Amino acid sequence: VRCEVLAIGTELLLGQVVDTNSAWIGEQLALVGIDSHLHVQVGDNRARIATAIRDALDRSEAVICCGGLGPTQDDITREAISDVLGVPLELHESIATRIARFFNARGREMPRNNLRQAEVPQGATVIPQVRGTAPGLICRTPTGDRTIYAVPGVPAEMREMLERAVLPDLSRQAGPVSTILSRTLRTWGLAESAVAERLAGRLAALDAAAASGVTIAFLASGIEGIKVRLTVKAPTREEAIALLDAEEATVRELLGAVVFGIDDEGMEVAVGKLLLGAGWSLGVAESLTGGLVGSRLTQVAGSSEWFRGSIVAYSSEVKRKLLGVGDGPVVSDKAAREMAAGAAAALGADVGLSLTGVAGPAEQEGQPVGTVWVGLWLPGAQETRLLQLPGARDQIRQMATISALDYLRRRLPGGPGGD
Amino acid sequence: VRCEVLAIGTELLLGQVVDTNSAWIGEQLALVGIDSHLHVQVGDNRARIATAIRDALDRSEAVICCGGLGPTQDDITREAISDVLGVPLELHESIATRIARFFNARGREMPRNNLRQAEVPQGATVIPQVRGTAPGLICRTPTGDRTIYAVPGVPAEMREMLERAVLPDLSRQAGPVSTILSRTLRTWGLAESAVAERLAGRLAALDAAAASGVTIAFLASGIEGIKVRLTVKAPTREEAIALLDAEEATVRELLGAVVFGIDDEGMEVAVGKLLLGAGWSLGVAESLTGGLVGSRLTQVAGSSEWFRGSIVAYSSEVKRKLLGVGDGPVVSDKAAREMAAGAAAALGADVGLSLTGVAGPAEQEGQPVGTVWVGLWLPGAQETRLLQLPGARDQIRQMATISALDYLRRRLPGGPGGD
Repeated sequence: VRCEVLAIGTELLLGQVVDTNSAWIGEQLALVGIDSHLHVQVGDNRARIATAIRDALDRSEAVICCGGLGPTQDDITREAISDVLGVPLELHESIATRIARFFNARGREMPRNNLRQAEVPQGATVIPQVRGTAPGLICRTPTGDRTIYAVPGVPAEMREMLERAVLPDLSRQAGPVSTILSRTLRTWGLAESAVAERLAGRLAALDAAAASGVTIAFLASGIEGIKVRLTVKAPTREEAIALLDAEEATVRELLGAVVFGIDDEGMEVAVGKLLLGAGWSLGVAESLTGGLVGSRLTQVAGSSEWFRGSIVAYSSEVKRKLLGVGDGPVVSDKAAREMAAGAAAALGADVGLSLTGVAGPAEQEGQPVGTVWVGLWLPGAQETRLLQLPGARDQIRQMATISALDYLRRRLPGGPGGD
Repeated sequence: VRCEVLAIGTELLLGQVVDTNSAWIGEQLALVGIDSHLHVQVGDNRARIATAIRDALDRSEAVICCGGLGPTQDDITREAISDVLGVPLELHESIATRIARFFNARGREMPRNNLRQAEVPQGATVIPQVRGTAPGLICRTPTGDRTIYAVPGVPAEMREMLERAVLPDLSRQAGPVSTILSRTLRTWGLAESAVAERLAGRLAALDAAAASGVTIAFLASGIEGIKVRLTVKAPTREEAIALLDAEEATVRELLGAVVFGIDDEGMEVAVGKLLLGAGWSLGVAESLTGGLVGSRLTQVAGSSEWFRGSIVAYSSEVKRKLLGVGDGPVVSDKAAREMAAGAAAALGADVGLSLTGVAGPAEQEGQPVGTVWVGLWLPGAQETRLLQLPGARDQIRQMATISALDYLRRRLPGGPGGD
């Protein structure tokens, strides 16, 4: 089964909104093994939407229309689908009742326009809403071998409906039911080509075993590192999970210390877990990053259990006064060392992490842009590291942040060590 | 002239990369008054790319192909265009020389594959590269009334080439030369509907004067506020700038204090300018934002002239020890006041700004999630403000950051005052 994606809305063509829905839908389709050869964005024009749907059904067995199901006069996806199918729109009583109740429950009068959302092309199957008011649609063509899906453009509503109704319906058409699961290993410290090289043997082995049911994909994600996605296909969920667990163990063995988390776990989560495990608290001293390290660590709910705070010492006097940095250049091994110890002392923390460097645009103290010293003060140990980072101001600040957190992760008890 | 956008790359269909290029191109086309009825994403498949180009040229006078111009075997946009035009690819000597020089200058041997980038469809006009190695293309169809543009998928290279070569070529075809310029007024503190209401009279007046040459558009941009974009069209650049200046003055008069900057100037730039003007330095004390305020202020190159630093006091003990916060709850008017004064004192700054509140997920000290106190310590004045912010942890932290900076902007000498 092939399925195209048609995103509907003039704001997409005008660049007022970036269409992130199509990418997300494409990813879900790929995960369940359905080919998607074309994604299209079209404006709020009835004839053009209908033509786009017809063109999609000429090429593929299904099309997912995303957007244009709301209550305003601009929302004409329902009408366009009716045109394609050659059937009238009919008022769907239970949807009308539900929408009226939605407004009543909020003590608001229902604008008449909202009843438009209760009109569906004759013969369509309705996907009931659980979040908003616009229902989704599943419409078979008269020949029965083509399907038009319609889902709202609001990302949360779209995702929920796709997972609950559209993907299961598509999978049924695609053939024997199987479970597809994926897991993403997050890595930091290797280029994509180096990650690929370490896994080359494994990839070749999986390719050779045609029916292994396992695929591996790489995704370079900038300051989030390289993501390695494992996808498995198996008859049952239990078998799929067992396959994923086994593959994760194999890949971790090959990649070693560069793996810092899975799925949505960022570097800050990895650091937090290790600190919690060690029963240690962290204090930070930042200069060029200006608060990025602290703001990233405090993204984690519950970070107050292990994060004491950060001293953003942007001026040299603050470094000397609050962190006890001595005379001499502030972009130096010595200053990074003093800042880390000073952060731990001033913030009453077990561990101190410091960053001092040159974010640009101009050099500082004769040091070139991109020079960054990271200092670490651990119970019974002290060390520093010199980074030479490429790029412009923002990139240097972001790279310094993630590099410093990775350095800390490697040195904490339970961490992997190494560089 | 109508122009479609065709983004090329299997990674777009798989959702590994979100296609932001098409939205950006769509925005530029709209700015110069060119209609774009369809945006399409297609994978790295020669036949399907060629079909997509043919389909686009059936509907529109031009198509901009974005991506697939690199050196690898996956990059087949050149081949697909040749297929559509029915002409062979030819080696373009000066491009080949340039690519070879690009590698020589970096002391690297040129992989043979890179010469593929020097092959262009017979008769094509080359858009020379100024950043990377892949040149762009302008290809007229044999009938002379259709144009295929090809630009790289790397956003910076694409944007540069679009502005330098593609848009001017399209504008020439679109008719009499006129200059189109735009300027964006950045606002904070009003909902989109309220901004629209204040400008309703002006919009009606512009609509009535059919040939005013001025259009106004709104763009809600989340924590970046509401953007008001002014676009003018005039015979010459001088006249366009005069029109823009006049319209900006009119709109600023109507919107008042909510306008904090133009174009790329964020709130941090506005605050920095006012501090610099007053000759004052700033010290910050952050709790729930964890460093976001400091990191945002230090995005500005040269911020060391007015930013001393920030004390991220995530734990209550740090608030008491470093900022001199007294006994009692830390999410309070009193604590915000003490933190602002403490930040100014500890960091040796003229101005102190503080934030303390509950980012969630759980309430704190009996205060609901979203409760935030902002404190301000100015030479000779002290005040606080209570915010009740909606949303989840990340949104509350971001909204608190921008709200606090806007509060500071209004209170600094030269700032607009008000709420």
